[in-house]
Amino acid sequence: MATDAQQACFEAGIKFGSLYHQFAGTPVSPESARSLEAAMAAAIENQPYCEAVDVTVHDDRVADAVDHENGYTELTGSLMDVRMRIEYEGVTVRTRMAMTEGYPLMELVEVVDDGEPSRSGGADPSPDGDPNA
Amino acid sequence: MATDAQQACFEAGIKFGSLYHQFAGTPVSPESARSLEAAMAAAIENQPYCEAVDVTVHDDRVADAVDHENGYTELTGSLMDVRMRIEYEGVTVRTRMAMTEGYPLMELVEVVDDGEPSRSGGADPSPDGDPNA
Amino acid sequence: MATDAQQACFEAGIKFGSLYHQFAGTPVSPESARSLEAAMAAAIENQPYCEAVDVTVHDDRVADAVDHENGYTELTGSLMDVRMRIEYEGVTVRTRMAMTEGYPLMELVEVVDDGEPSRSGGADPSPDGDPNA
Amino acid sequence: MATDAQQACFEAGIKFGSLYHQFAGTPVSPESARSLEAAMAAAIENQPYCEAVDVTVHDDRVADAVDHENGYTELTGSLMDVRMRIEYEGVTVRTRMAMTEGYPLMELVEVVDDGEPSRSGGADPSPDGDPNA
Repeated sequence: MATDAQQACFEAGIKFGSLYHQFAGTPVSPESARSLEAAMAAAIENQPYCEAVDVTVHDDRVADAVDHENGYTELTGSLMDVRMRIEYEGVTVRTRMAMTEGYPLMELVEVVDDGEPSRSGGADPSPDGDPNA
Repeated sequence: MATDAQQACFEAGIKFGSLYHQFAGTPVSPESARSLEAAMAAAIENQPYCEAVDVTVHDDRVADAVDHENGYTELTGSLMDVRMRIEYEGVTVRTRMAMTEGYPLMELVEVVDDGEPSRSGGADPSPDGDPNA
Repeated sequence: MATDAQQACFEAGIKFGSLYHQFAGTPVSPESARSLEAAMAAAIENQPYCEAVDVTVHDDRVADAVDHENGYTELTGSLMDVRMRIEYEGVTVRTRMAMTEGYPLMELVEVVDDGEPSRSGGADPSPDGDPNA
Repeated sequence: MATDAQQACFEAGIKFGSLYHQFAGTPVSPESARSLEAAMAAAIENQPYCEAVDVTVHDDRVADAVDHENGYTELTGSLMDVRMRIEYEGVTVRTRMAMTEGYPLMELVEVVDDGEPSRSGGADPSPDGDPNA
């Protein structure tokens, strides 16, 4: 059988793929970014084992991407940061998506199984007042 | 050349297809319905010539569609009503999507070209305090 | 009432918005471009009044957009041309999406009502063996 | 650090969420089902570590879901089975989505780390000439 930690990581991945491919392509501007952040988080938090989702759409990047007269662009991974917390059978998985070398990388930040942390190198588990903590 | 009214109707159709196929499949529950309504409207209002979008996700239909233990369903046309107002070169187009004989039908409600109304039969142009008016 | 030509243009717009927002964001490479073209066309041809859809994903643009080591990119309007033919109550509408001044523009090419053409300026109605003709 | 097997399961989940939420809502009929199956598989196989994807859209279920005169329905998880094979740093993960108690369940079928199988209970790892094997 797959372990609970493996199942938890599988569930975490499902949420990331879901969020990205459901909302990529959505028309977005600085004016609509807040409502989109809220809807993305609330939608994915509906999914099983998904305890917290935090989406930040960067207005400065959106403004830079608005390269035509219409005043909006389409949502892509390069415009946002995402953090999630998954809880599955006592295992906590923290994940994030952020720009890494020009590419939006989805990554495991931390897998904690009954208090035994298994932390990925280089990633910030963000203990400081994070909504996903 | 296509007339301004034809162009306006083309633009109206683009917005409807965009809204539907961008957001269909989004996980939704009564708890997340409000944020989804807001994000859908704000996203599509970014598009050219789109002056107003009003989305109503019906909580009772969502609750009925939640047929498994996870507590959510996926957004489909049968769960929502949508109304939009498009303005193109002096032409105002009002459209709506609502359940008609069990199928979510997108339809032109009204095409008004410089004050000359061209109204579709049977549809309610909703003059009464509607956000799309 | 809206005219048949206006209804036809509304239907044409729905198809364009649907195609774009259903498939934008799909992982694509030169190797998968043919199957994606075929699926996009066949999917949208299911919709009412949609007689022909022709999608061309430009391999050279896809190759240029593959800017990371993974070998794929995500579908956007800048990577493809689309042409459609809609038939509604005797009205034929031809539309296309192509890059115009760096932006993928969806446009009406031709509206023909019972043999009375109403052609938009500057667009090529493609009389030459086009699958949408 | 997360283990290679956990990373592999995370990657497997991403692919499933991506496939589902990219393509859910696509208009589909028995006539367009084959091209959609092919495009879904080829698109997701572009993603990192994704070695094989097999999608089966069940024509009988599609036909049953076509409940209006237009002759098509929208793709949902209940209409298809999906199997995938992920390879990450020597770990092979097999996953599938199939209807379970009326709900399309995404699940880990097998996690094999350097030849040490970790098989989930009740799932068929499909040794018989499967394209994902």
